Amino acid sequence: MSEFASQHEYLAFCESQSVLPEGFTAGATPITFKPSELGGEKEYRMNISGIFCDQSTPSFHAMFTKNHFCGAPVIIGKKHLKNGLCRGILVNNKISNVAVQTGEQDALTVLQTCSEYLGCPVKELFPSSTGIIGWQLPVQEMVQAIPALMKSMVSTSLLSVAQAIMTTDSYPKVYREICGSGSIVGTAKGAGMIEPNMGTMLSFICTDISVSREQLAQSLSWAVEQSFNRISIDGDQSTSDMIIILSSNKKPLADLGAFNLALLAVCKNLSHAIVRNGEGVEHVIKATISHAPSLAVAEQAGKAIVNSPLVKSAIFGNDPNVGRIIGALGDYFGNNKIPIPRDSLSISMGNIDIFSNNGFCLDKRKEQLLTSYLKEASYSLQGHYPPHQKTVDIFVDLKAGEYECSVIGADLSYDYVRENAAYRS
Amino acid sequence: MSEFASQHEYLAFCESQSVLPEGFTAGATPITFKPSELGGEKEYRMNISGIFCDQSTPSFHAMFTKNHFCGAPVIIGKKHLKNGLCRGILVNNKISNVAVQTGEQDALTVLQTCSEYLGCPVKELFPSSTGIIGWQLPVQEMVQAIPALMKSMVSTSLLSVAQAIMTTDSYPKVYREICGSGSIVGTAKGAGMIEPNMGTMLSFICTDISVSREQLAQSLSWAVEQSFNRISIDGDQSTSDMIIILSSNKKPLADLGAFNLALLAVCKNLSHAIVRNGEGVEHVIKATISHAPSLAVAEQAGKAIVNSPLVKSAIFGNDPNVGRIIGALGDYFGNNKIPIPRDSLSISMGNIDIFSNNGFCLDKRKEQLLTSYLKEASYSLQGHYPPHQKTVDIFVDLKAGEYECSVIGADLSYDYVRENAAYRS
Repeated sequence: MSEFASQHEYLAFCESQSVLPEGFTAGATPITFKPSELGGEKEYRMNISGIFCDQSTPSFHAMFTKNHFCGAPVIIGKKHLKNGLCRGILVNNKISNVAVQTGEQDALTVLQTCSEYLGCPVKELFPSSTGIIGWQLPVQEMVQAIPALMKSMVSTSLLSVAQAIMTTDSYPKVYREICGSGSIVGTAKGAGMIEPNMGTMLSFICTDISVSREQLAQSLSWAVEQSFNRISIDGDQSTSDMIIILSSNKKPLADLGAFNLALLAVCKNLSHAIVRNGEGVEHVIKATISHAPSLAVAEQAGKAIVNSPLVKSAIFGNDPNVGRIIGALGDYFGNNKIPIPRDSLSISMGNIDIFSNNGFCLDKRKEQLLTSYLKEASYSLQGHYPPHQKTVDIFVDLKAGEYECSVIGADLSYDYVRENAAYRS
Repeated sequence: MSEFASQHEYLAFCESQSVLPEGFTAGATPITFKPSELGGEKEYRMNISGIFCDQSTPSFHAMFTKNHFCGAPVIIGKKHLKNGLCRGILVNNKISNVAVQTGEQDALTVLQTCSEYLGCPVKELFPSSTGIIGWQLPVQEMVQAIPALMKSMVSTSLLSVAQAIMTTDSYPKVYREICGSGSIVGTAKGAGMIEPNMGTMLSFICTDISVSREQLAQSLSWAVEQSFNRISIDGDQSTSDMIIILSSNKKPLADLGAFNLALLAVCKNLSHAIVRNGEGVEHVIKATISHAPSLAVAEQAGKAIVNSPLVKSAIFGNDPNVGRIIGALGDYFGNNKIPIPRDSLSISMGNIDIFSNNGFCLDKRKEQLLTSYLKEASYSLQGHYPPHQKTVDIFVDLKAGEYECSVIGADLSYDYVRENAAYRS
C-alpha cells in the first residue's frame, strides 16, 4: 500500500479502488431526524446506503457478531442467511437498532419499502446498522428516503457507500483486488474503538467472480480468521458487527487459490485500515508471536500485548516502558496456565533486542533508539488521512513450538477518551 | 466512612486510623539513585519501608499474583511462605524488581542486611516491590539505607509506611478496625490502574489478635474474595501484587466471626479506596448484578460492565450512553455462552429505570436526570483527597437465579492516559 501526502491524494486513491465489479449498483442518501429519546428537539443526521446486485444471487455469505444481545439487523440477517437468494444490503449509520422493543419490526418496515422498489422479497435483503445503542430507528424518515436512495444508485463506484457508512471514522476505507477477468471490492466501517470491545465493524464485499455459496462461506471464514480476527478490534464482540460478501457471478472463476488470496488481501487491507483509523489512534502496534505451542496461544499472546492499556498508553507517550510487555504476557500466560519458560524468551521492539537470557537488557542507547523509533511511528501532527503505514513492531520469540501469528492493535490516547466520552453529542 | 473537606482533614483521619496494634513497629526512609538503564545520569527517588513484629510470629499469611512472569519479590515470598515464622516485610516503591536477571539475588542481598539488624533469619522476611518493570534495584543504596530505616521505626503509627509505599497514588490509604481488646490495621498501595491489568496492588495488614496461621489463611482468602477480587483492578494479574497479614498474637481472640467481619471491613475500605484513588479516576462505578445463575456469572458480568472502555469513557464524560451497558453484557454472555433471556432483564442507573420489557425505556427527562446524576458523582474540580464516597450505581437484574454481587470500578479519563503515557518521567 502507498503513503499519501494529502487527503486529496488519499481520496483519489479511494476513488481508484472503488470501481464496482460487474452486476452491482451502490448509492447513498442523507436524512435528518429528531430522536424521540431526546424529546424530539435535537436534530441528527443519518446516511442510508445500499449495495444491490442487478439480479438476486445464490452466491452470498455473511458472518455476524457473537454478542448475546445482538442488534435487530443481526437477528434478521441470521434469518435471511437461510434464504436461497440475496439481492443486497441496506445500511444506516448513527443508530445501531440494538435493544429496542420494536427493533426488528422497524428494520423490516424500511426493508419492505426498499424491496418494493427493487422488486424482490424482503428476505433477499440484509439490514445493517451502526451507531448508538438503545435508540429507535427514525422509520418514517428512512422510508421516505428510499426513493432518493434508489435515485443515487450507480454501477460505477462504491465510494459513496464507503463514505456514507462512516461514524467516527475519519476517512473512507475501500480496497480492490483484480483477479483474473473479475475483481473483488470491499469497504469497511470503522469501529475505530481501539479495545476489543464494542466498536461496530461493518464490512461489505462485492465480486463478479463466480464462486458457489459453499465456497464463498469457506473462503470468507478463512480470510476473516487471518485479518479481521487478528486486529485488536475483535470483530466478534460488538452488538452489530457483520461482514457480507456477494457475488454477481458475472465472471468465471479461473483459480480458487488466486481468488482466496485476493479476498484475503482485501480483508487484510480493510482490517488494518480500521486500526489505523481507530478513534484517537496515534500508533499502530504489530505484535508478532513466534515459536508458540499453538496458533491460539500465538494469537492470544499477541492480543494480550496490543490490548494492555499500560502498553498502549506508554506507546502513545513514545515512552519505551517495555517492562509492561512482560507484564501483559505474564498476565495471559499465568491466568491461562501456559508454562512458557522465562529463560528461553526473547523480545525485540523495532528490531532492538530488549529481553533475553532471562531478563531485560536495557541501556541508555537502546532507550534513546526506542524513543526515536516510537516517535517516527507516531501519527501526531499529521492530517486526518492515513499518513503512513508504519507500525510499532514488537517481536516475541517464545521458543516453545512452531506457530506464529501477528496481531494488529493501536495505542491509547487522549483522543480515544475524548471521542468516547461524548460520542453522541 | 466519612467525607473530607480538605486534605488536612483527610490526613488527620489517616493518622487516627494508623494506630499500630501491639507488638509491631513500622517506619520508612527515602533514598536517591541513578538507574544504570538510563546511563546513570537521571536521579530518581525511592522509599524503603518496613513493618516488623517485635518477635517472629507463627501467625501470618500471604497471597500473591497469578502472573506467570511474577517479580523476584513474589518468587521469594512464595518460598518464605513455607517457613514456620515471619518477622516482617521490607518494601520499596519505584522499581518492581521484575524480569531482571539478578532480581532474586538483589532482593536477598537487601533482606540480608535487614535481617542482620533485626537478628532473624532472612527467610523470616517478605520482600515487596512496586514500580517500573525491567530495571534493577539500586542494591548498594538500599543496603546503605537500612540503618536509617531502623532508626525510623516507631511502635505507634503505620502512617509513614502508608505514605512511603505510594507510587502514583495521590493520598495514603490506611484503615483500622477495633475488634474486642485488639485491632486490625491495614494499608494498601494503589495500583491506580483502572483496567484489570497490571497496576500493582500491595496491601499489608497487622493485627494483635491471636489467630492461628491456618485460620488467618482462611479468613484472608474469604475477605480478599469479597473485596480486592471485586474491584476492577484485578488483584491477581500484575507481576507484583501481594497481600500479607501478620498477627503479633498479643490479644486473645474473643469471637472469630467478629474478627472476620473486621478484617473484611479493612479489606473493603482499602480496596474501594484504591479505586477512588485510581489514576485519573473521576467517577467510581458500582455495578450490582442480581438474580444471577451463579456467583461467578454475577461477578464476571459486573466486571464486564466496569471494564468496558466504552462504558467507562461515557461515564467520564457524564454522558448517559447507557446502550453501551447492554453491549458490554452481551459481549460477556455471548462469548461465554450464558443464555440470559433479554426479555426478563432490567437495568437501572442511579435508581432510574433504563431497560425493561425487552428494550431501553429512555426519554428526555431520564436523559437529564442521568446527566445530573453522573455530574454529581464526579470528582472533577475537587482536590486530590477523597472528595466524597459517591458511586455511579448500575443495577442489573438478570431474573435468572439467586446470586448477587457488586463490583467496583472506575471511569476512563484523559488523566489515566496522561499518567500512563509517561509514568517513568
